[in-house]
Amino acid sequence: MKDIVETLQAGAGKQFINLSAGNPLILPEVEQLWRDCTTELLASSEYGEVVCRYGSSQGYAYLIETIASDFNRRYGLDLNNNNILITPGSQSLYFCAANAFGGLTTNGGIKQIVLPLSPDYTGYGGICLFQDALVAYKPTLDVEEEAHTFKYRPDFSQLSITERTGCIIFSRPSNPTGNILTDNEVGKITALASPYNIPVLIDSAYAPPFPALNYTDMKPVFGDNVIHCMSLSKVGLPGERIGIAIGSSRLIQVLESFQTNLCIHSSRYGQAIAANAISSGALANISEQFIRPFYQKKFTMLEDSLNSAMPKNLPWFLHRGEGAIFAWLWFKDLPITDYQLYQQLKKVGLIVVPGSTFFPGLREEWQHKQQCLRISLTGSNEEIAKGMKLLAAVVQTVYQLSS
Amino acid sequence: MKDIVETLQAGAGKQFINLSAGNPLILPEVEQLWRDCTTELLASSEYGEVVCRYGSSQGYAYLIETIASDFNRRYGLDLNNNNILITPGSQSLYFCAANAFGGLTTNGGIKQIVLPLSPDYTGYGGICLFQDALVAYKPTLDVEEEAHTFKYRPDFSQLSITERTGCIIFSRPSNPTGNILTDNEVGKITALASPYNIPVLIDSAYAPPFPALNYTDMKPVFGDNVIHCMSLSKVGLPGERIGIAIGSSRLIQVLESFQTNLCIHSSRYGQAIAANAISSGALANISEQFIRPFYQKKFTMLEDSLNSAMPKNLPWFLHRGEGAIFAWLWFKDLPITDYQLYQQLKKVGLIVVPGSTFFPGLREEWQHKQQCLRISLTGSNEEIAKGMKLLAAVVQTVYQLSS
Repeated sequence: MKDIVETLQAGAGKQFINLSAGNPLILPEVEQLWRDCTTELLASSEYGEVVCRYGSSQGYAYLIETIASDFNRRYGLDLNNNNILITPGSQSLYFCAANAFGGLTTNGGIKQIVLPLSPDYTGYGGICLFQDALVAYKPTLDVEEEAHTFKYRPDFSQLSITERTGCIIFSRPSNPTGNILTDNEVGKITALASPYNIPVLIDSAYAPPFPALNYTDMKPVFGDNVIHCMSLSKVGLPGERIGIAIGSSRLIQVLESFQTNLCIHSSRYGQAIAANAISSGALANISEQFIRPFYQKKFTMLEDSLNSAMPKNLPWFLHRGEGAIFAWLWFKDLPITDYQLYQQLKKVGLIVVPGSTFFPGLREEWQHKQQCLRISLTGSNEEIAKGMKLLAAVVQTVYQLSS
Repeated sequence: MKDIVETLQAGAGKQFINLSAGNPLILPEVEQLWRDCTTELLASSEYGEVVCRYGSSQGYAYLIETIASDFNRRYGLDLNNNNILITPGSQSLYFCAANAFGGLTTNGGIKQIVLPLSPDYTGYGGICLFQDALVAYKPTLDVEEEAHTFKYRPDFSQLSITERTGCIIFSRPSNPTGNILTDNEVGKITALASPYNIPVLIDSAYAPPFPALNYTDMKPVFGDNVIHCMSLSKVGLPGERIGIAIGSSRLIQVLESFQTNLCIHSSRYGQAIAANAISSGALANISEQFIRPFYQKKFTMLEDSLNSAMPKNLPWFLHRGEGAIFAWLWFKDLPITDYQLYQQLKKVGLIVVPGSTFFPGLREEWQHKQQCLRISLTGSNEEIAKGMKLLAAVVQTVYQLSS
């Protein structure tokens, strides 16, 4: 959000507790892994072939083979190289999919890009050259009043998947909410899409086997019309922009052709070091041993801080922390907008992200859209504890003033 | 071209002279430069910030500053950071420009992407989601019959730049022809575009200061409606996909916003090592001392081979070798198509690229489109000499059979 960047830049002197970041922290073990892989690449004669030559649009062959064999072993699949595409980050994968499967058709019609559960990743908002093609659906809410927690559910009574649907996209675990759609919910969505051969892109940027930022059990879902989409941005390679698509060769071929026109191929240094880290098993290990526990502890810490700081009598609800690196808070009947709340928090030195930016494609009015905040788990324990106290104080005043 | 890839893969046993490649050779001095820069990056604490963190959409700040100061010094410009954008390869830069400035407009009209001189880079063919928006213009030909050489010129009597034009793109030096549009020709094009504020993208992938693959004097052209577009693919970093756009902040801002939605930002390892190589002056030096002489000698060699092998009485014409890493041959009144010629050459073990693939956007019939070949300068001296002899023999037979 532009205002956050400007606030942080302008307030160089001022100390903010910044819990807005989507930029993961650099964990020392993770950086060391990539340094070691780079040293190995430099020592090898392969370096020139990787960096100094064009490659294939599909991606670096050794990385593709490595992923195929890792996933076949891990999940009992039968993938071959034609089932995998490497993209320059997963954002560009969604861009390709949105415009190859969705958007304007050659005969002037529109194929929708459907987000079955809103809120979802804000970056989906800009992936289609035809903004009108993006359509998101309001969820239902499972609320546990006493526990001050809730969980979003897809509203299957509303979700409409038809021959006018181009593709379906959702993140699992979800940025911003930390929600993990159940196997059953995912199964229902893919079943709705299947009769029309509609690709279902499951954004697994936080899923196992890496970065494994799931705090409840989950299994990746594969299938004939499923494109399992991964990112290496949460395992320490955000700078290198590596996205991975796994799906039927029919769908992968479409995306690959689009990608050739878009950018020829993804950059290869990151692909080469990733291939080594996946092949040795180090990437999955480091995810389970360092990355997941690190953020899971942060979430528990934040939850505890909130529970002790927030008044029991106010209608605040923390989304169940099932995964990802954010906490998502809903303030029912909030007397001001999320953006106004963001501004008030800024005044006391706390920066979080107003929730209304996470409802791309949801055009209908819904007060809930202006009642949420996304809080990053990238802060230190002290920052999180102090931040939640500041938040509690401001929120209390806001509700009191209106009553 | 798909047939070339399949031929080379299928003919694993067979020895082809492959003069089709667009993939530059790895020059040892160039690979060593990138290895040294990588060692330096690894030794620095900056490594984690480069690889393990998201960056800004605009690009790696140090690279941007370095380019601004290098170009200001070198060309007497007044660039600041807002005039520069780093893209994941220059293909993606043209994709962004074609769809941001050209293509379908919000009110349903079409803005054209104009290629003022066809033939030009085949990759422009796929950059716009609306293929009809791409419009190329037939050139005029300066032919020197005696010398068996020719040069393309933009046909200003035909070139139409209007309020319906979204942007203009051409390569200079040109892939595939090696043509360098004169300062005067470029000036005329930018002057036609200026009244409508139409961006003119000058694809400088082969231009000075790096890779400096110009064999006649040329100066890069800058200007208010000019976007000077560079690539590091011909200075040994094709694997890392680095494109650079230099232009007015107004145009750069449009491209940057598009890029945010497309891919967040370019990968950063390549940007970081490039920043070091540009800042030290090594990149420009190595371009002038190794890259340019290497390919210039290849061109002279090819020219000499052709002159001694090709019959004087046949109407073959070599495009003036003003730059880039290809030779472009025109066979006037060729009795067969370029694709048939390609097939015949394949039979005798020579692979080149049929010229007809380099006329994207030129829809009108023109026999010339089926009378050309692109020959890569990436072959060894022996391959080039032998290849030109094979070519001469086949071409001679082809003309004889028809007469």
